[in-house]
Amino acid sequence: MTIYLFFINLKSKTNGENMKIQIHKKSAVPFYLQVGNQIAGSIQSGLLLPDEKLPSLRLLADELSISVLTVRKAYKWLEKNGYAIVKPGKGVFIKKKINKTSQTEIGSNWQQSLGINVVRSQYLITREQVKYDFSKAVVYPRLLPNKFLAEEIQKLLKDDASILTTYGPVQGDFELREEITKHLYEFQKIKCTTENLVITSGVQQGIDLVAQALLKPGDSIVVESPCYGGALDIFINKGIHIIPVEMDKEGIRSDLLEDVCVKFTPKLIYVNPAFQNPTGISMSNDRRNELIELAQQYSFFILEDDSFSDIYFEEAINYLPIKYYDKLNHVIYIKGFSKTLAPGVRIAALLANGPILDWLIAVKASMDVGSPLLTQKAILPFLRSDRMRNHVEKLRTALQIRRDTSVDILSTLNEKLQFKIPNGGFNLWLNFQDHNLDIFELLRKANNDNISFLPGVACYINPTDVSSFRISYSLVSEKDLSDGLEKLRDIIKNM
Amino acid sequence: MTIYLFFINLKSKTNGENMKIQIHKKSAVPFYLQVGNQIAGSIQSGLLLPDEKLPSLRLLADELSISVLTVRKAYKWLEKNGYAIVKPGKGVFIKKKINKTSQTEIGSNWQQSLGINVVRSQYLITREQVKYDFSKAVVYPRLLPNKFLAEEIQKLLKDDASILTTYGPVQGDFELREEITKHLYEFQKIKCTTENLVITSGVQQGIDLVAQALLKPGDSIVVESPCYGGALDIFINKGIHIIPVEMDKEGIRSDLLEDVCVKFTPKLIYVNPAFQNPTGISMSNDRRNELIELAQQYSFFILEDDSFSDIYFEEAINYLPIKYYDKLNHVIYIKGFSKTLAPGVRIAALLANGPILDWLIAVKASMDVGSPLLTQKAILPFLRSDRMRNHVEKLRTALQIRRDTSVDILSTLNEKLQFKIPNGGFNLWLNFQDHNLDIFELLRKANNDNISFLPGVACYINPTDVSSFRISYSLVSEKDLSDGLEKLRDIIKNM
Repeated sequence: MTIYLFFINLKSKTNGENMKIQIHKKSAVPFYLQVGNQIAGSIQSGLLLPDEKLPSLRLLADELSISVLTVRKAYKWLEKNGYAIVKPGKGVFIKKKINKTSQTEIGSNWQQSLGINVVRSQYLITREQVKYDFSKAVVYPRLLPNKFLAEEIQKLLKDDASILTTYGPVQGDFELREEITKHLYEFQKIKCTTENLVITSGVQQGIDLVAQALLKPGDSIVVESPCYGGALDIFINKGIHIIPVEMDKEGIRSDLLEDVCVKFTPKLIYVNPAFQNPTGISMSNDRRNELIELAQQYSFFILEDDSFSDIYFEEAINYLPIKYYDKLNHVIYIKGFSKTLAPGVRIAALLANGPILDWLIAVKASMDVGSPLLTQKAILPFLRSDRMRNHVEKLRTALQIRRDTSVDILSTLNEKLQFKIPNGGFNLWLNFQDHNLDIFELLRKANNDNISFLPGVACYINPTDVSSFRISYSLVSEKDLSDGLEKLRDIIKNM
Repeated sequence: MTIYLFFINLKSKTNGENMKIQIHKKSAVPFYLQVGNQIAGSIQSGLLLPDEKLPSLRLLADELSISVLTVRKAYKWLEKNGYAIVKPGKGVFIKKKINKTSQTEIGSNWQQSLGINVVRSQYLITREQVKYDFSKAVVYPRLLPNKFLAEEIQKLLKDDASILTTYGPVQGDFELREEITKHLYEFQKIKCTTENLVITSGVQQGIDLVAQALLKPGDSIVVESPCYGGALDIFINKGIHIIPVEMDKEGIRSDLLEDVCVKFTPKLIYVNPAFQNPTGISMSNDRRNELIELAQQYSFFILEDDSFSDIYFEEAINYLPIKYYDKLNHVIYIKGFSKTLAPGVRIAALLANGPILDWLIAVKASMDVGSPLLTQKAILPFLRSDRMRNHVEKLRTALQIRRDTSVDILSTLNEKLQFKIPNGGFNLWLNFQDHNLDIFELLRKANNDNISFLPGVACYINPTDVSSFRISYSLVSEKDLSDGLEKLRDIIKNM
């Protein structure tokens, strides 16, 4: 059931803003939270503005066919989470945003006076080595083919040491691009030519490259909310106007997205459709096609970060990438090989069509004159052999076992914690029922037991949902995974 | 002889702008060109503004103790080169800048409508392989220790293949940073700790990193004019206001620089003090210290790109880096190992002190989560051995021979061409006496003979000096160098 509500905007010039609320009767999420979350989503996306009045309790209750008490509870929730303010006798209003500048006190000399301020969600990632490290979406090294890779590099250098003393082409080594075109067709059914690929030093550099080529400060872009924190860092530090759009179980909400397009004309949308980081949600085929349609209608680029699609646990939900459906060159697709193959070599490939390709190559030249030839050649033999398919199958099995272990241990906490079981990827996204729980207190306690995880705030533009966190089950051994999660479970039980 | 001229600024609010002109009586450069060049330098730096009236012929002639004819010739030269406009009966005025947007016609779909425009001086570098490639400041591969490096990497991977499957620290591998602190002390007399170093994927990425950490669109920075084109690309594409400041034989003109600081309060100055790319000029010790003083007085950073200091041909002019004199953390120093050791691994080190260090690490995390561990480990054994010193000595000898060959062949053209003999580095910077010569016509003719070089316009913000070009004598064999330059000499002779 979808219903459209028309709010009278008291301050803005527009006469009314529309907003959609969906009530899922069968959902385990209580109605008040469904309403609260969706209104919060519209606020975060900028579709509802500060000082706007929310509809009266009775009006909203009638329109949604829910009780007045439920709406009151939703509004209380919005107030508690800093989205709304109750003015007695006047109604409930959307709160003005508080600008928190995260100014760190690092020193006090002349440099400070220049007012430079770099944001970094990575600060939230534990820097120290901990035994039970659930904070990083990285694969357990023993699951990776390091021996084979090492032997092949040795052969390579024996045959031709000149790869150490020559610059490769800016766009990337030709042989590697050739191999990746084959790989993309075999694994993702995407057809492309070597001309359309740009090799980057990992996915992170690929996103930075696209941002540098396309975006100026003040430009608007859309991200999923929550979103991969490393991507947020890039956009925040470039002064981009970032519009977070809520997700449901099918991925980013395309109905909200359309309103956002009308209002903000974004230049780009960054999505992670396969087993999204951090939520693990996969975007449905309908949504993928709606996204393409919106991109065509509103002329924006889709940056499709496809880091996890190969790590699926059920054949049936192995969707095709959005790039597969792209007819008019809206999708810039990026595939990394760090996660599934060799983090130590940092190789990813950007696939793009149209004039943008030339801009990407120009910016890559200005960023680093091309990725190192040595690391590009390093993964070539593996991609060429038939080992890649077997390796990825082995990874899937190993990660599925880890997911199952995690789910088994953490589902005993279902009175306190809620999470969806991911069908692929490296991550579990958890929410505390009690939204007042201090996730940083939990992190401190966990750290004392040699455990780390990623606080959810790293994945939000306007962090208000402080009760979520991400567990990456990929990095540790099976034994450490169960030992660590059992310890974490006990800590949570006792909070 | 320095003289200060006060111009009445017709349009701007300031009542007068000062400008310095130096006449070198002993210089081979004709007086009119000295006057013309210096006025042009002030225009390029923004010290003289459009519509300002230049002093009358007689006034300037009197003040400089030169003939009226010489001043007339200087003004004619300024007019011909697009700096000034002669209004009969009114005087000579500084011309308005013409904004040439280098919009390339690449396609015609919706992407074009987004109006993205990436500038790239690299377009000027010949993409095709040519036999006599003088366009790249890169070392002839056979002069590099590829065999030793290859063997060491093979050993390394045999001992511990896990470097392929782990991410290193964002700041850079600890062992490598340790080795580089020793190297910097041994080679440059710079004392630093591992904590102050950030490893980047080549100097290019280091410059990009500093720009991303410090600069926003509209911020002002100063560069030497001419300047390394790859650095200009970075700054241009970020929308930075770039102020080119003229050089003389001691490097960037600090007298002009002071005026620029007063007028524009730049945040950063990018310099290449040792055997500057492209001119080969080394900054004198006086200038180095003046630069530090100005940085302290006007609170800006100095980005010292030290790519060439190890390649000196005379012991006596081996200056100490500006960083050596830096007491208040104004200098960010960058040293690359691609050029002298292994272009295929792309490793450089940024050295900084103060809060900026933390920002640099944060931006590096957001750029690519750290450089690949494999390439960082690759150069470690070489730096650790005593081979580095011998290798650099061998390089110096080989490059000095190449410089001598180039000077011998090209000095037969001294009626048409002028150049200074560089005391180190990879490059020769040449100017045609005839400022109307079409350098691109020369390039086309050279290309037909399998020769390439870098047109000087790649090194200017406002390219007007179309009569300069850069010959890199580093990339080809000795035989190819002399064969190619002889062919080029003959082409020039016949033009």
